[in-house]
Amino acid sequence: MRGRPRASKPPARNTARNGGEGLYAAGRFANDSGMSEPKLYFEDFEPGAVTVYGPRLVTREEIIAFAAEFDPQPMHLDEAAASATLLGGLAASGWHACALTMRMICEGFVLDAASMGSPGVDEVRWLKPLRPGTQVRLRATVLDKRASNSRPDRGFVSYLFEMIDESDAVLTAMKTPLMVLRRVPGSAP
Amino acid sequence: MRGRPRASKPPARNTARNGGEGLYAAGRFANDSGMSEPKLYFEDFEPGAVTVYGPRLVTREEIIAFAAEFDPQPMHLDEAAASATLLGGLAASGWHACALTMRMICEGFVLDAASMGSPGVDEVRWLKPLRPGTQVRLRATVLDKRASNSRPDRGFVSYLFEMIDESDAVLTAMKTPLMVLRRVPGSAP
Repeated sequence: MRGRPRASKPPARNTARNGGEGLYAAGRFANDSGMSEPKLYFEDFEPGAVTVYGPRLVTREEIIAFAAEFDPQPMHLDEAAASATLLGGLAASGWHACALTMRMICEGFVLDAASMGSPGVDEVRWLKPLRPGTQVRLRATVLDKRASNSRPDRGFVSYLFEMIDESDAVLTAMKTPLMVLRRVPGSAP
Repeated sequence: MRGRPRASKPPARNTARNGGEGLYAAGRFANDSGMSEPKLYFEDFEPGAVTVYGPRLVTREEIIAFAAEFDPQPMHLDEAAASATLLGGLAASGWHACALTMRMICEGFVLDAASMGSPGVDEVRWLKPLRPGTQVRLRATVLDKRASNSRPDRGFVSYLFEMIDESDAVLTAMKTPLMVLRRVPGSAP
């Protein structure tokens, strides 16, 4: 299956105002502040759906800038030093790959969704080096979803996010749950 | 137990030149390029050891700058918008917390270690918001280690890395394996 999470008619405003799960227990959804209405709610995510977003060019300059700030190991900073490392040449920090993946997730659909954030990441695998000049894309697969047991206004959507290159080789794979508001609180998923 | 990974006498140069595990299969350790000799090898990491590194002040400016580049959601960008979200106020992107943790890992010991990188991350939990002005520290716990089954020149050291605040509250917890060269290839761990 391939395509964006199912498009929907303009949603009814979700009126839930209080959270209840971990980090997000006390607060309100961003939409209450008058920002643009989200288009995607929990009901709109279909397990099995695969969507590809991007591309985005990753430059040598940004690889080095990120590494200098966050991961100053030789293989992320300098071609000569990197060529002598196990990566065999300059490659982005794995955390840079994760951060770029998050940017593509935001642009892909999260900024249009009634997203309440994520409690964490279940797994990250850095499978191949992210080299300067690579055109990366994000392949987002909905693995599963479930309504919250304790809060009828929300659910969890489990995603596999893969950063892929021009040949569809997977560079980084990340499994993570997203917490998303339901359009109709308490309704069947 | 508390303390740096056990200090060691100047190590014998590790002569292994070829890797063999996943991403790092073809290449050489950085040390071969003439950079400074690593001080910490696989033998020097003691399961149960807990070390605290830092502190580092996290500023509002860097929280917003990271979010603008990698995670442009309202709760990471703007106080007014953030106060209306589930986080109840401006807080760093979880990926920023991870990147800052990596920086503290580098400064803490990885740049002094015969580190060959990591195949990924086993789990990340974003437990509490990282707020502007927080003085964070890194608490690094060696969970376990094992010699590589296939490569006598290296082993894996499993770490729990926790970003903690001034009150020792855990903001972000991350479990990850590091691949580290052995000082004496093939010797008993």
